[in-house]
Amino acid sequence: MTDDHQSFEGDLARLRQSIDNLDAAMVHLLAERFRCTHAIGELKARVGLASRDPKREVAQLRRLRSLASQSGLDPDFAQKLHALVVREVITNHEAVKISGAGNQC
Amino acid sequence: MTDDHQSFEGDLARLRQSIDNLDAAMVHLLAERFRCTHAIGELKARVGLASRDPKREVAQLRRLRSLASQSGLDPDFAQKLHALVVREVITNHEAVKISGAGNQC
Repeated sequence: MTDDHQSFEGDLARLRQSIDNLDAAMVHLLAERFRCTHAIGELKARVGLASRDPKREVAQLRRLRSLASQSGLDPDFAQKLHALVVREVITNHEAVKISGAGNQC
Repeated sequence: MTDDHQSFEGDLARLRQSIDNLDAAMVHLLAERFRCTHAIGELKARVGLASRDPKREVAQLRRLRSLASQSGLDPDFAQKLHALVVREVITNHEAVKISGAGNQC
């Protein structure tokens, strides 16, 4: 194994360790985020409010795209992530309508 | 406005503030994650390695699903997020092939 190859393997392992740490942090943040949306769903169900709030979704998206630009993340990717999360929240909400609990954005 | 309604508005605002904070943290983590994949792409391009590593992707996915289960996140949602990120990395890599830089998982 050459010095160059050893250096490559070391650099790759270090970067992958960082990615694994960042991924673990993201999973835990998302778990907490869905705990919040679940709590909001329960609140709204209690007062009979609609699960979706289009104005809130538009404001969230605008803010996420702005934060993405500031941090060097592609704003289009942030938008894809937001769409994925909102879809999940809606799916949860539909399940909740049947079960009588609450879970939304 | 009734006490119940005031309580609802306060609870909703507090939960939404938490969601906004969690979303901001996620955007910054993702920005850092793509910095790492970009650096890996450059490393691999330098030594002529393939951008994708299916064994690594399988190991990542298994770990993410396990972390999701432990933290109370739906493992299927973690898998959707992983797929979204991997797709983005591949798209970046295809762009990089043309430009001569590197960016991958």
